[in-house]
Amino acid sequence: MKKILLLGAGRSALSLIRYLFDQATAEKWQITIGDITVAHLRPLTEAVSFAQAIPFDVHNEAQRAQEVRKADLVISLLPAAFHLEVARECLKQGKNLITASYVSPAILALHQEAQEKNLTILMESGLDPGIDHMSAMAVIRRIKAEGGRLTSFKSFTGGLVAPESDNNPWHYKFTWNPRNVVLAGQGTAKYIKEGQYKYIPYHKLFQRTDAFYVEGYGHFEGYANRDSLSYREPYELLDIPTMLRGTLRRPGYCEGWNVFVQLGLTDDSYALSNSEHMTYRTFVESFLPPASSPGQTMATRISEYLGIPADGEVVEKLEWLGLFDNTPVALAGATPAQILEKILKEKWTLAPGDKDMIVMQHLFEYELQGERREVTSSLVVTGEDEVQTAMAKTVGLPVGILAKRMLQGKITYRGVVIPIYPELYAPVLDELEEYGIQFVEKERIVEHV
Amino acid sequence: MKKILLLGAGRSALSLIRYLFDQATAEKWQITIGDITVAHLRPLTEAVSFAQAIPFDVHNEAQRAQEVRKADLVISLLPAAFHLEVARECLKQGKNLITASYVSPAILALHQEAQEKNLTILMESGLDPGIDHMSAMAVIRRIKAEGGRLTSFKSFTGGLVAPESDNNPWHYKFTWNPRNVVLAGQGTAKYIKEGQYKYIPYHKLFQRTDAFYVEGYGHFEGYANRDSLSYREPYELLDIPTMLRGTLRRPGYCEGWNVFVQLGLTDDSYALSNSEHMTYRTFVESFLPPASSPGQTMATRISEYLGIPADGEVVEKLEWLGLFDNTPVALAGATPAQILEKILKEKWTLAPGDKDMIVMQHLFEYELQGERREVTSSLVVTGEDEVQTAMAKTVGLPVGILAKRMLQGKITYRGVVIPIYPELYAPVLDELEEYGIQFVEKERIVEHV
Repeated sequence: MKKILLLGAGRSALSLIRYLFDQATAEKWQITIGDITVAHLRPLTEAVSFAQAIPFDVHNEAQRAQEVRKADLVISLLPAAFHLEVARECLKQGKNLITASYVSPAILALHQEAQEKNLTILMESGLDPGIDHMSAMAVIRRIKAEGGRLTSFKSFTGGLVAPESDNNPWHYKFTWNPRNVVLAGQGTAKYIKEGQYKYIPYHKLFQRTDAFYVEGYGHFEGYANRDSLSYREPYELLDIPTMLRGTLRRPGYCEGWNVFVQLGLTDDSYALSNSEHMTYRTFVESFLPPASSPGQTMATRISEYLGIPADGEVVEKLEWLGLFDNTPVALAGATPAQILEKILKEKWTLAPGDKDMIVMQHLFEYELQGERREVTSSLVVTGEDEVQTAMAKTVGLPVGILAKRMLQGKITYRGVVIPIYPELYAPVLDELEEYGIQFVEKERIVEHV
Repeated sequence: MKKILLLGAGRSALSLIRYLFDQATAEKWQITIGDITVAHLRPLTEAVSFAQAIPFDVHNEAQRAQEVRKADLVISLLPAAFHLEVARECLKQGKNLITASYVSPAILALHQEAQEKNLTILMESGLDPGIDHMSAMAVIRRIKAEGGRLTSFKSFTGGLVAPESDNNPWHYKFTWNPRNVVLAGQGTAKYIKEGQYKYIPYHKLFQRTDAFYVEGYGHFEGYANRDSLSYREPYELLDIPTMLRGTLRRPGYCEGWNVFVQLGLTDDSYALSNSEHMTYRTFVESFLPPASSPGQTMATRISEYLGIPADGEVVEKLEWLGLFDNTPVALAGATPAQILEKILKEKWTLAPGDKDMIVMQHLFEYELQGERREVTSSLVVTGEDEVQTAMAKTVGLPVGILAKRMLQGKITYRGVVIPIYPELYAPVLDELEEYGIQFVEKERIVEHV
């Protein structure tokens, strides 16, 4: 009997829980699910003998120690900020840990201790980061094994709304933490292109998009992630001339979002002086210069200020959100980003029956035997409904599969690890195919050099 | 015999030292000047019996304690970050302190302790902040005393180059810490206009300028300072519908500076990956999108990216700085802001004989007896040369005058104080006139309401 402690059981954990339950009997697992509230989990756990849900407070040191002590493996889907405490407890008590979050500098600092204690802290094991590493490394290793020299690697992922549920001019709904979507890209995007380092400040990010096409799913646009450089080392691509990671949206989204950035609506660094008395309209107006003539419409003022057409698709997107309406903000001491998040949540939440869609595309260029070649590897996953989302599935399944491998003793890497090694990713990619999560690859010769 | 300890004796301290020396004999002062290095001070102090220069390290706790102990009054012109340690020492040993820097939250936290110990920490006593408070409060109190109701207060200050030394297309040279000029305005500018709070994000700041005219000195433009709201309380203008503080430049400067902001060249938050191998040209290029056609000039690429004319005054300003030249950056691990500062220093440093110029303008609107009135109060101070600058004079003299008043026992305010009370500012404004620092006021009736 192996004991799994799963911490954090929000909506995105449902697919993982399903997977663990499916495997529990054959694998002889006993599963404890801990979250701040567990009422929503009772219907699941009461039906089975191998699982229980417990109220769990990560800040309760005694409880943290007690529950980790009982486990053979800890999985954390808690917010990323809480992983450090969990990881420290795991090290203290000699337990392995899996999360779907980025390796933070604080987590990375635990590498040596974990190695010395023969433990594995397996990070970045969800979708993005996660499946992106696994699928990219599979192609990169194959190209290298064939003797190819990689010259360019671009990788873009988006959590979007499926075409059949896409009924708004932004072609977007929230499938992930709305706050993270509002704050996305803040800082400076760094990448390398044809050997030159490139830097895009936040206020230019949504203007400098690339176009993408995925067969059967149409057109997309992508903006650069903050850091495309730090993966050159783990991917063993230190000398690659071009490397860029980014986020996918439907065409037009970024031009609309850029209005928020230009106005300053995504700023989370200060509270507005009178947010509780604002309406959506006065909120936007507080970021606009004075009207240049009396009675000017909001659309015209924004158009003049930002140089966009007053009657085009961008303004239509803003109007659809109700940004020019006198709806009360009804939030005290709020930052601009908090108000924007509230406005967007009212419009961008998945409705009952809505399906989401994950799109990932890798583009590789390499040279082999005098030829310049190009490989495109694309993944599209559509959710079942607003609960069984593609997002939950693509985050949860790789975590679940890696948990199984870990408990079977089949993971030999120690320390702070991400799934860039065949031992880690090959079985995951294989098993994901059983769940319809499968990349489509196209390869072509671009040029004989 | 009263003992003054002056800490920090960089270039901007020269006028203050001159003032203290002029008064020393009559006032019976003994002056100790402490700085990291003092070689440049020997010629000054060796000629007089009432002053000495000592090597002083603010981080040396024992020395700090020892020198403060000997003093009757401490003046600090050290970088603002060091004032807290000095202020704590003064409180500990029961000494008064004067600085020309902004009240930081940490300094403000000492208010009660200073009051309880019957001590004065007199902050913001230079030019801006300093003379701006004093001169504005003189007008505000007069208007209020006459029964006027203030409806608008705008105040702009600039440290510029005098017309006779203005020989570059930016019409600007450094007269103050270049690093502060490069980082100026970062954050969000907050002000209030006709009762509405207004917010300008940094990337829009240099596009939203106001025009100013000072008789005899021509046209200027002003951009908003970060925080125009926090002075409503000390100025006793809590209900004023319009209040804006800002920085003055010559027309065209802000449009040029905006190119740096838009490209991302003023960012100080990260180091570039290969700054030691960059030239000015590749530095700029790393912030540009790829050329849209082969052989495009830098001017055309910037023009297309930012929507400015390729052959206009803005591009001329950039070319004059040598930004498109292959000059090596020669700085390792530098932030964009550090590289920009280096480039600007080579071009914007005052040459021997160059004169700087301080311009300050307050604009008041108020209602009195059914009339809408407007008062403009303007100050222009021109430096003698590149050493005896207007900046050093306007920062140093008010500090010196307040030091004299303090040692004469004529300052009765206790705690953390700024010079907004007649007791503090009236003698300073009077004595400044003797040095040719005098505001010119114009008043007119705008409308009978």
